[in-house]
Amino acid sequence: MNTQEYALLTDFYELTMANGYFESGVAEDIASFDLFFRRVPDKGGFAIMAGLEQVIDYLENLAFSEDDIAFLRGKGEFSDAFLRYLRHFRFSCDMWSVPEGTPVFPGEPIITVRGPLIQAQFIETMLLLLINHQSLVATKANRIVRAAAGRGVMEFGTRRAHGSASAELGARAAYIGGCVGTACSVCEKDYGIPALGTMAHSWVQVFSSEYEAFKTYAELYPDNCTLLVDTYSTLKSGIPNAIRVFKELDPPSKAIRIDSGDITYLTKRARVMLDEAGLTDCKIVVSNSLDEWLIRDVILQGAKIDSFGVGERLITAASEPVFGGVYKLAAVETDGVLTPKMKISENVEKITNPGFKCVYRLFDKTSGRVMADVITLDHEPAPTGDDYVIFDPAFTWKRKKLSNFTAVNLRKIIFDGGRCVYERPAIDEIRSYCAGQVSTLWDELTRFENPQSYYVDLSDELWRLRTELIEQYNSEL
Amino acid sequence: MNTQEYALLTDFYELTMANGYFESGVAEDIASFDLFFRRVPDKGGFAIMAGLEQVIDYLENLAFSEDDIAFLRGKGEFSDAFLRYLRHFRFSCDMWSVPEGTPVFPGEPIITVRGPLIQAQFIETMLLLLINHQSLVATKANRIVRAAAGRGVMEFGTRRAHGSASAELGARAAYIGGCVGTACSVCEKDYGIPALGTMAHSWVQVFSSEYEAFKTYAELYPDNCTLLVDTYSTLKSGIPNAIRVFKELDPPSKAIRIDSGDITYLTKRARVMLDEAGLTDCKIVVSNSLDEWLIRDVILQGAKIDSFGVGERLITAASEPVFGGVYKLAAVETDGVLTPKMKISENVEKITNPGFKCVYRLFDKTSGRVMADVITLDHEPAPTGDDYVIFDPAFTWKRKKLSNFTAVNLRKIIFDGGRCVYERPAIDEIRSYCAGQVSTLWDELTRFENPQSYYVDLSDELWRLRTELIEQYNSEL
Repeated sequence: MNTQEYALLTDFYELTMANGYFESGVAEDIASFDLFFRRVPDKGGFAIMAGLEQVIDYLENLAFSEDDIAFLRGKGEFSDAFLRYLRHFRFSCDMWSVPEGTPVFPGEPIITVRGPLIQAQFIETMLLLLINHQSLVATKANRIVRAAAGRGVMEFGTRRAHGSASAELGARAAYIGGCVGTACSVCEKDYGIPALGTMAHSWVQVFSSEYEAFKTYAELYPDNCTLLVDTYSTLKSGIPNAIRVFKELDPPSKAIRIDSGDITYLTKRARVMLDEAGLTDCKIVVSNSLDEWLIRDVILQGAKIDSFGVGERLITAASEPVFGGVYKLAAVETDGVLTPKMKISENVEKITNPGFKCVYRLFDKTSGRVMADVITLDHEPAPTGDDYVIFDPAFTWKRKKLSNFTAVNLRKIIFDGGRCVYERPAIDEIRSYCAGQVSTLWDELTRFENPQSYYVDLSDELWRLRTELIEQYNSEL
Repeated sequence: MNTQEYALLTDFYELTMANGYFESGVAEDIASFDLFFRRVPDKGGFAIMAGLEQVIDYLENLAFSEDDIAFLRGKGEFSDAFLRYLRHFRFSCDMWSVPEGTPVFPGEPIITVRGPLIQAQFIETMLLLLINHQSLVATKANRIVRAAAGRGVMEFGTRRAHGSASAELGARAAYIGGCVGTACSVCEKDYGIPALGTMAHSWVQVFSSEYEAFKTYAELYPDNCTLLVDTYSTLKSGIPNAIRVFKELDPPSKAIRIDSGDITYLTKRARVMLDEAGLTDCKIVVSNSLDEWLIRDVILQGAKIDSFGVGERLITAASEPVFGGVYKLAAVETDGVLTPKMKISENVEKITNPGFKCVYRLFDKTSGRVMADVITLDHEPAPTGDDYVIFDPAFTWKRKKLSNFTAVNLRKIIFDGGRCVYERPAIDEIRSYCAGQVSTLWDELTRFENPQSYYVDLSDELWRLRTELIEQYNSEL
């Protein structure tokens, strides 16, 4: 990602607002914004946060080129003083974030940015773009990987991705979510994600026969020898030719890939044919419009599959291709006085949580499993003790008393006054952290259909602040 | 798009095949590949081709850096001679393509590449990525624009796009499909697409009152004064404050934007309130999870809307986010002898058309409307005369006789031996060409639900070649 060119990859309103804040003298007031989402795609029980590394890259490199400024001058809407300011623009805010790979839930601030209003506002579009995209794909990948029940899932969707970044960063997010690798070559070079691939149907068609095509391939790539067996007829020609070549050349790595037809039927037949030929070490790989539901179904039907290649439905999160993260003002500090801000809405789910906040995850001391997340105001102590009471933000009569827990502050400081103070984990660390954290969730949360709702509740003090602000708003109307 | 870094943005199998072709001595055999798609997303009647300009950029700049080659050497699967070859790799094929903005139909070759097998194969992944992405969004945009029935549609989806290229090139494709502009600032700088935007809810929240926020904005931007009226209460506070500011300051441009609540109800009420205040020139803009179905419905219900901002459902083509373009081998020439190739499949729709081909669109001489597309073999003359017979590729008993038509060769030559010979049209030309071409389609094709199927048929000669190859394949099995 060439982040240096992304200053103008932003909604135009960020620029009109920035100029407006500048001209109205409020640009340097200190504001806090929260990034959060309202519902899990596919009605799932949780999402996987991803994209933080690219947010850090973006913020560290955010600057306006002379070209950018000349373009803005040409629009005729911006003051000269503002354009001069942009020339020296550097990100100097504080930022806290949930680490990549963390299971996250609706309503909790995944990222909080605190700093000069003009900056904290401006970065909205790219933060949402980066976090929404990768969290979408990581969440989908994790569903597909769970459906595969221990079998490997390869990301195969480059050709159906929504542009180059969708392919590259989508593969990165899929790896965080649990995929074992990708077909996209550049992802290994740039992100250290294993890239793999063997042949297309055209390889088989170019040679004088399927047998010749397979034999040529096996001679060249004995250690990566997955033969695509469905160019002509999978059972009558593809598998017999693969068996012949495997027996003649005995490559150390043997696999067949089936990319069409009925997966359950064909893989069962394939397994019998391979085993009868003594090729019990030959793996079976399948691809072709797979997703978590189809994978679950064919495994239930006893399909004989060693690994899956998943393309378009993973890289686009086809069943619900939108991760609805939003970025909302939570507080403004003028002359040292903090005013909590909230967006009121007739839709109770759309009311935001005011103030500068913390998020804790409470783990059951006995089982190590998660119990609830709690949002507190920043100055409150971490939740402790027995009988700690938390409040449902939407349904205010709902309260819950918790005991026997360990509270973990879910977010880390990433930027301190614009300086990155976070040690970025390697991609494999993020991936295993994700798997570990998902294993702390109760089974009830991991169902595909109708999972249990997780508690993301408020502390007593935050709940009271929120209630007061709603009452104040109602009395003014 | 920094196309210089995209050599490895490709499925790894393109590289294993390239090395394999090189090592087997078939790399310089001349091959033809066709890029086509099998079904229109959302069960629509036609798609809009887009992405050609980025394909040209990609092919003109395609080269492997020393870094790329070092990375490939590290994989241990490629021969030294192949890696030396890559160092001097330059695209030298011929390429034909349908121009951007053209309505296209399943089964017809949108792009054909003819040249050395190793090259024509290698470029598959990026061609598909670029054409699939932009054709997907241009097709969706055209549906939404048709639903808006003459009202402007702005692309507002940057924050929900699948990465940076999804935002930028998605906005480009949306403009080709008929949108009037985008919220994404860089698209104006890089692609000449009008970028527009005014304020977020946070602007309204930062000031001491909604009235102050609106007044400050109107003073700064009298010529771009769209006030967001739903931060608190649209009818009780937002619209009254907007009216007050418009009457006090009388900015030349007046509009309100509604981003939540029931669009039909609120816009009707808003129109009455604005008109009663004498603000008949104040426009009403709506946004919030719109798509072609919702836009059609609210217009039918008499909602008072001047323009739409459409975000996530356009930029991700949310209702069906995959454009299934494929790239298939059609012929190989060895020692000057052309062998047509086809992929046989048990699914009749998946059988490809063999040989090196042309595509003609037949326009009715009287009405100027489209009648059918015909695929011929390259050496055949253009369709002419009365009683020209065409053949359905899948249902072979279906034939059609056509008269009184003008045949237009649908594709232009883009690359001649690797040299771009195509004069790239400006984006506004592409956009108006698209609108003009869509207007040649019969209404039956433009319905959202259950549109008429369009004829993409074969010439007599191509139909016979196809039939012979299927028979030959069956006899060999």
